[in-house]
This record gives sequence, C-alpha cells and structure tokens, in this order.
Amino acid sequence: MSKPILYITRKEHFNAAHKLYNNAWTPEQNEAVFGKCANANWHGHNFDLYVTVKGTPNPDTGFIMDLKLLKRIIKEEVIEHLDHRNLNEDVPFLKGVMPSIEHIATAIWQRIEPRLPENCRLHKVLLYETEQNFVEFYGEFGV
Amino acid sequence: MSKPILYITRKEHFNAAHKLYNNAWTPEQNEAVFGKCANANWHGHNFDLYVTVKGTPNPDTGFIMDLKLLKRIIKEEVIEHLDHRNLNEDVPFLKGVMPSIEHIATAIWQRIEPRLPENCRLHKVLLYETEQNFVEFYGEFGV
Amino acid sequence: MSKPILYITRKEHFNAAHKLYNNAWTPEQNEAVFGKCANANWHGHNFDLYVTVKGTPNPDTGFIMDLKLLKRIIKEEVIEHLDHRNLNEDVPFLKGVMPSIEHIATAIWQRIEPRLPENCRLHKVLLYETEQNFVEFYGEFGV
Amino acid sequence: MSKPILYITRKEHFNAAHKLYNNAWTPEQNEAVFGKCANANWHGHNFDLYVTVKGTPNPDTGFIMDLKLLKRIIKEEVIEHLDHRNLNEDVPFLKGVMPSIEHIATAIWQRIEPRLPENCRLHKVLLYETEQNFVEFYGEFGV
Amino acid sequence: MSKPILYITRKEHFNAAHKLYNNAWTPEQNEAVFGKCANANWHGHNFDLYVTVKGTPNPDTGFIMDLKLLKRIIKEEVIEHLDHRNLNEDVPFLKGVMPSIEHIATAIWQRIEPRLPENCRLHKVLLYETEQNFVEFYGEFGV
Amino acid sequence: MSKPILYITRKEHFNAAHKLYNNAWTPEQNEAVFGKCANANWHGHNFDLYVTVKGTPNPDTGFIMDLKLLKRIIKEEVIEHLDHRNLNEDVPFLKGVMPSIEHIATAIWQRIEPRLPENCRLHKVLLYETEQNFVEFYGEFGV
Repeated sequence: MSKPILYITRKEHFNAAHKLYNNAWTPEQNEAVFGKCANANWHGHNFDLYVTVKGTPNPDTGFIMDLKLLKRIIKEEVIEHLDHRNLNEDVPFLKGVMPSIEHIATAIWQRIEPRLPENCRLHKVLLYETEQNFVEFYGEFGV
Repeated sequence: MSKPILYITRKEHFNAAHKLYNNAWTPEQNEAVFGKCANANWHGHNFDLYVTVKGTPNPDTGFIMDLKLLKRIIKEEVIEHLDHRNLNEDVPFLKGVMPSIEHIATAIWQRIEPRLPENCRLHKVLLYETEQNFVEFYGEFGV
Repeated sequence: MSKPILYITRKEHFNAAHKLYNNAWTPEQNEAVFGKCANANWHGHNFDLYVTVKGTPNPDTGFIMDLKLLKRIIKEEVIEHLDHRNLNEDVPFLKGVMPSIEHIATAIWQRIEPRLPENCRLHKVLLYETEQNFVEFYGEFGV
Repeated sequence: MSKPILYITRKEHFNAAHKLYNNAWTPEQNEAVFGKCANANWHGHNFDLYVTVKGTPNPDTGFIMDLKLLKRIIKEEVIEHLDHRNLNEDVPFLKGVMPSIEHIATAIWQRIEPRLPENCRLHKVLLYETEQNFVEFYGEFGV
Repeated sequence: MSKPILYITRKEHFNAAHKLYNNAWTPEQNEAVFGKCANANWHGHNFDLYVTVKGTPNPDTGFIMDLKLLKRIIKEEVIEHLDHRNLNEDVPFLKGVMPSIEHIATAIWQRIEPRLPENCRLHKVLLYETEQNFVEFYGEFGV
Repeated sequence: MSKPILYITRKEHFNAAHKLYNNAWTPEQNEAVFGKCANANWHGHNFDLYVTVKGTPNPDTGFIMDLKLLKRIIKEEVIEHLDHRNLNEDVPFLKGVMPSIEHIATAIWQRIEPRLPENCRLHKVLLYETEQNFVEFYGEFGV
C-alpha cells in the first residue's frame, strides 16, 4: 500500500559573532564590499536554524523521525559548536571559510546529513541571520 | 496567451488536546518512545494550519480562488472538528490513527482536497504543533 | 550614589491540556458559561510565560539577577509541573482551582516569589494562552 | 569542482491602500464577489514582501548576491512605487489591473527579474497581505 | 479574604485606509509635516488592537470577565466600524478628528469603557499601526 | 479642556557583538559567573530596541511627537553607535561598563532623554537581547 511522504522541521537557534572580512584584501576593499559587516571588532546575530527531514511516518509511532533525536543531532553537530562562539575564529569546521549564511548553511548540511537514520533524508537547511535576511540549502550542487 | 501560476495560502488555527500513546504497547514502552508526550491525562497545543492552493488568477477578480471560500472549507472540514477537541478521542476521521502532526496533516489534506473548485488544486498542508515543530504535506505518496 | 532600577524578563513555555468545567454545575450550565472550553475530553494550548523581576544591576556583573538562575527557578517551580500535563488533573498546586489563565498566573506568582534572591523582587507574571488571550499579575490583592 | 546552489531571501515591506472593485460590474456585483474588500473609500494593509534569489556563493565573498544590492533593487523597483500609495490609482505599472495579491506579486516579479545580476536568477516572490493571507509566485506560466 | 487583581487582554485586528492630512493647511504644509503619510489617495495598515481589563477573578469561573463578551464588545464597538473602512471618511465617531493612532486609540477607549461589566474596569488600549509604531492609552487626561 | 495623555513607541534594531567578562577577575571566575557569555572571542545578538515617549497629541497633527523625529534621534544617538559594533570595544559611551542589557538600556536612556522635545518626556527604554531575555528601564533610580 502506498504511504504518505512528508517533510518535518525542527527549529533551533544560536547566538554568535562574526565578521565578513577577506584577509586577502585591503581594509578598503573589505569596507567597499562588506560595508559595516567588515567591522574589525566583530558584530553578531541571533541565528534561527530550521532543519527539514523528508520521509514516511511509521504507523506505530506516527513519526517520520523522532524529533527528540533530530533535536539532539542538531545540538551535537551545530549548536554546541556555534552557540556563543566567534564563527571566524572558534569553529574548526568553518576555518578558512568566509562565514556568510550561505557558507554556514552549507556546512550545517554536511554535518547533519550523515547523522540521519536510514529511513529518512535531509531535505532543507534554512538559516536566518536576521528577520530580513535568510538562506535555504537543499543539498544541490552545480558546476 | 500564457497566464501566471501562483500559490495562495490561508492560515487558520485550532487548540486541541492529544497524547502520543500506542495502546498495543506497555506504559513503559510508550514512555520510552514518546517521553512526556505519552502523559496519560493528555497535553495540548495551539495548532497553526496553513493551506496552500495552486492556480491561475481570474482576470476579472484577480483571484486564484476566493479566500472567503477557502476559509469556509477549512472551517467546515477541519476547524469545526478539531478545535477545542481531543484528537485521540473526539474526532471520527482520526479514529485508530496515532495523532502525530504527520498523520493529522495527511488527514487534513484528504478532507480539503475534494472540496476545492475545479480550476485550482491543493498544493500543501503545513501544520505547526509548536513554533519549533512543524510538518508539510504535498500529497505525495510512496511505497 | 543613586543606582538605576530596572525590570528584567525571562520567557519560557509549556504545553498543557485543560478544560474549564465547574463540577458543581450541570453540563448545560458549563456549556452555557464556558462554551467549547468545557469540552469533556479536554483541549490544550502552547502557554508562553514571561516572568519579570525588579532590581538594580550589580556593577561587577551588570546583572539584576542571573537569568540562568531565573530560568532554573521557573523550570523547577513551573515548567516541570505543568509541561505536558493536564492542568485540572495532574498538578497538586492547582487542585480544586478552576484552571483559567487568571488562576494559573496567580499560582505561578506564589511559587516563584519565595525563590527569588533578596536583592530583587518579583514584578510581573504574564501568561499567554493564545496570541489573542493573555493575563498579567503584579501581586496585587484587593477585597 | 561542484559548487553549492542556495536560495537567499530579502524581506521588505510597504503600507498601501487598495480596493477590490471591478468597474465593469455593478456595485451589487462587486459587493457580492468582494464583500467588504469592495468598500468604495478603500481599505489598506501592511504588505510584507520576500524576494528569493537562486545562485552559487562567490568563494571570495561568500555571497550569492550582495543583499545590499538586492535591497536597493527592491526599493527602486517596488517600495518607492507602492509604499504609502493607492494601488488602484497611484501606480502606473498596476493600471488596469485588479490589485489582488496575485496580480501585485506577478507585477513585482516582472520588475525585479530584469534587474538581477547575470550569475543568479529570481526564484520566488512571496507577498503577505495579512498574516493569514499570502501568495507565492515562482515565475511559472500556463495556458 | 483578599482576592488577586489581574489584567486580562484580548487582541483583535482590522485593516483600514487613512491619510494624515490637515484640510486647514496647504498641500505643501501637509507634505512638510506628514511626508508620505499625506498621500492624497490614501494608504493603509493592518491595525492590531489589544484591550486590557482589570479585575478580580470570579472563583466559580476563574474569569475576570468572559473573553467571549470582551471579544463581542470590541467587535460591535470597534471592528465593525473600522475594518475595511476609510478612517478619514467612513467612521462617524472619527469625523473631524485627525486619524493618528493617538486619536484612534482615545476614541476606542471612549467606546469600550461604557460597555464593560460593573465588576471590572478598562485598563489599557494598545494600538499597533505597524510592528514599529504603536500607542498606549490608559484613560489618563491632563490639562 | 482636559487632553488625553498617551504613550507612543518606536521600534528599531541593531546587531552587535559583546561578551560578559570582568577584567578584574580570573578566567575561571568569569566562566563560573557568566558561562558561555564569557567566551573570549565574543558572541553577538540581534538587539530589538523600543523607545516609549509620553505626551498629549497636538490637535492639528494628532501627534504626541513626530515619529520621524523619534526615529532620527534613536538613529543618531543609538543605532549609529551600536549597530555592527563590538559593545565592549567600539562604543565610547559604554567604555568601562559591563555591556549587560541592564547597562546598555540605562545608557540608551541617558542619550535619548536630553534630545526629546519639551512637550513630551521619555517613558521607557525596552531592550531585547533575545526573544527570551529583555529588560525595561523607566528612568528610576534608587539608593
């Protein structure tokens, strides 16, 4: 018999500092490209993170995936490493990467995807930097 | 001439009690799987429901579908049956189903889909249990 | 030297079931007064709780009161007792009380007030039942 | 080497008046179809607009597209023309169009799409009229 | 025995058009003082209205005041007169008044206050024009 | 004739980095008191700021105070100094002050209060650090 396919989401958050600053450039180039986001002494945000998983509910539990488990995976793979940290300085898996929300979301995908149970798969990582700026990643790659 | 295709959404809400408890299992099994959601005397939520319809606007009205009609369909098919009810006990169309948001969203799709006008079709049912937990159903089925 | 007096707030939440039903009345009276809130098999809500404390910041810490401590007090005195519970049945300190948000907020005040440190005092308990209905208690009593 | 493809969104808003009224119809027909939205003297809304762009981040900046540029395009093409205006009367690019959110979103797409840089493309225009009513356009056309 | 005094709030909303324009002034003066809010063809908002009532809960019901009644009073006295209307043109009780949120909130107080039951009293009218601009009135008057 | 007294609020926001760290203490003491907020390389937040002014509306304009002016004062006195800055390092008027929200709110009051027009007065500064933590200052001082 055919079974419904759904998408379930868990929201978590973290507060972190960062700056957008390319060390290969002069301060003037950084100021020209990144504006106030290049401030040498950092700035920060309350980041909201939504992780969406695709699958079919188990008839016994009604669950695609136990959200308590998804919460724990997000906590272990993301929140413990990013919350109250400096995204340019303190996070091994972001070393050498410009910490834009595009790059942070991509890195979050790569950490969560291998941890999911076999019967479901990662569908989306959605990351808010502010209420006005956010990015979505569906695991797509191009050339 | 080609016409734009859009997706229009109406948000409604209901407040309900439920528990996640499988009667085929022991209390200990339920506690192990569902944790505090298995509390014998129930708990509850403010559920937010978003129903999205796909179609092409009528040039005379600018409407894909009259949202007053969509609101009435949601009210008659969902809100009147779920609002201020017990989702395990009081709802004929959820009888024998574990009332997880996955299963509730699937049931809501099945009730709303046949009521829509011919010129549009149901695209998505999105159901929030809390601000941190929500599920989306697009009418997809698998094996 | 004079020191500023401020009000600091911590928000927490809990999900619970309740019904508004006076056992001294007939079902018809309950239906007439409480409407759908009297549904025999319960309904429920996502309750948002804001606890506000008044005091003067310590110059060494900048804190009126450590919010980690306030969070722990709210957790121990309120959340552990109300979250995923039935407010009519499962909560000793609400026994025999109609669990309206007025009565719940008053009971929350009485549990938190004695736990606060000496240098600050409880200012307000704000409890949302839905986004449209909420109640505030400042510890005032009348005749 | 393959590069990630992401979707980045900028939110802006505008406040405007409109009415839903078809001048080819009688007042009674308008009242029957549009209800209170046909009020002769107008009504209005706080519109929230989300514009989503698809692309691949530049490794030097981490940006799909500079959001300061996207903000400026939205401002020049949409906000300056719609904010604090009457959508039936004051907006050349909406002349002769019923100003439903379906039609407004389609017109916004057509204004923003040609302004985007070559390396990214417009993915979605999402327009909220109220918290309960919103429409999404992905640039799709049908017959 | 002393009884707790609490403040209970009901939120409603309405969508309306207005302009800030003083007919005793030239268009240039209006433009100088009110800026884009003076646009001749109107603009509009989604107004959120919070009405707060002070009182003591009845032990039999747990209610300061039945929120179903408060909702009906707000509907009859405010929403039916302001929703989908033009606040400068369509509302008898705002005639001759500049429809700023200050003046609208004051008028709302005057309509709701006489309708409340004897055992409670109106405490506050809070009116949001946008998420960024709002006004509170506690029934205070000065010289 | 008596005139109504109201409270009008303008919301603005800024994104900033800070840490809670007392240089007179050892790292261990800082860790013990401030926990993860003491992270040496900073963290940050999206701060939401609400400034409330008390006064009587001018009958000609309906305004207690022009919100365009209040917005400009907040921008000049607060946002330009705090947005995308490090609150421990970059802000002259916070030098030597532990940048807790208690101390930041007090400093904001002191900068805005002298800038207000004569006919109104500052009533409240409300500062959110996260959705769960916020502080209010009414200009009160004690011993």
